[in-house]
Amino acid sequence: MKRISGAVIRRLPRYYRQLKEMEREGIQRTSSLALGKRMGLTASQIRQDFNNFGGFGQQGFGYKVSELRAELAGILGVGEGLCYRFVIIGAGNMGRALGRYSPFSQEGYQLMGVFDNTPERIGQNIEGVPVMPMEQLVEFVRQNDIDIAVLTVPAAAAQKVADTLAQTGIRGIWNFAPVDLVVPETITVESIHLTDSLMTLTYRLRQQSEETGDAEPGAPRPVNKKS
Amino acid sequence: MKRISGAVIRRLPRYYRQLKEMEREGIQRTSSLALGKRMGLTASQIRQDFNNFGGFGQQGFGYKVSELRAELAGILGVGEGLCYRFVIIGAGNMGRALGRYSPFSQEGYQLMGVFDNTPERIGQNIEGVPVMPMEQLVEFVRQNDIDIAVLTVPAAAAQKVADTLAQTGIRGIWNFAPVDLVVPETITVESIHLTDSLMTLTYRLRQQSEETGDAEPGAPRPVNKKS
Repeated sequence: MKRISGAVIRRLPRYYRQLKEMEREGIQRTSSLALGKRMGLTASQIRQDFNNFGGFGQQGFGYKVSELRAELAGILGVGEGLCYRFVIIGAGNMGRALGRYSPFSQEGYQLMGVFDNTPERIGQNIEGVPVMPMEQLVEFVRQNDIDIAVLTVPAAAAQKVADTLAQTGIRGIWNFAPVDLVVPETITVESIHLTDSLMTLTYRLRQQSEETGDAEPGAPRPVNKKS
Repeated sequence: MKRISGAVIRRLPRYYRQLKEMEREGIQRTSSLALGKRMGLTASQIRQDFNNFGGFGQQGFGYKVSELRAELAGILGVGEGLCYRFVIIGAGNMGRALGRYSPFSQEGYQLMGVFDNTPERIGQNIEGVPVMPMEQLVEFVRQNDIDIAVLTVPAAAAQKVADTLAQTGIRGIWNFAPVDLVVPETITVESIHLTDSLMTLTYRLRQQSEETGDAEPGAPRPVNKKS
């Protein structure tokens, strides 16, 4: 398959999500125009994206929602018979929340183990999966054919954990630590940077106030920090 | 200030984060090249980004880390004296994890209230902030000058909550629900789509296996779905 641009790859799950939503709503047929309206994209943008994969549907006839969803599931590698095994490293609030996030298991992502080095957390259960000590990570990942490690450790520990993971032969890291990880080429990293995202929102809010002349958020407020 | 592209805006918090990291490491001076190495960007990319804001530092002399960090804080609207007020809507696992995520308060984001419509959750405390019933949301947001609502409700409820929020005059929504929200122009939405991100990672893993000839993740594994 030819190299697809990152922007297109990022839109694939959005298409898939929209089509599942349409199926739930009982919508059977759609068009590039209708799909675009729901997603804030133009019809030609959508056709262009789909052409990367040889195109779907028939010009002028639109798409059958269930068929298009199945095509996208195939491209994304999710759906029937497919299952990815992941571990969570860091059993804090975020790690526990992700371990309990039901859409993952619904899409075939299976939580296999949770790791932490805080003694009180060892042996706790998250969705029936035990929290194990970090020393067992390397062997566990090797023996259980784990696809993805989800990193929810503090910033200061993240690179060290990534270095440890590099020894296991794992190929995917889903990183929630606010750190740009350095990993060997064999590992693919996808990051969720929460604070970056929140700051981007704040920046956009302030820009908008500047344009509209509204009071700037944040600025003249008494600080009352919790810590 | 001139319109800055979305890609540049998204890099601002990353620069800010790297510079804070460098300060912690005791690094006092840096260059576009050194900063770029840490972030996987070229020096000229970085200079171009900074030129959007009039440029920092002096050609050939690099940057003083503390000064550059302060400049970026000013642009992002974070740091001393600035404070943003947010509420969390949805006191499930993800809502609670975000309420307890300490980097937010460290950057001046203050949790003011949590809302839910599950009776057992009402009255619970998250970092000293009470969970209140949804009926109180509109009045609370209006009376407490809330800047940002964090949405961690299920997909099916998200649009309805966004519609309710539109009545409050709030200007920012940080959306964690797997839904593309439709909101009036006065509201800025920034979304974290967890499943999209995980699927993007999976897609990239499978692409990589195709290129290297390794076994495809996911494919031949027995499915053992939970739930």
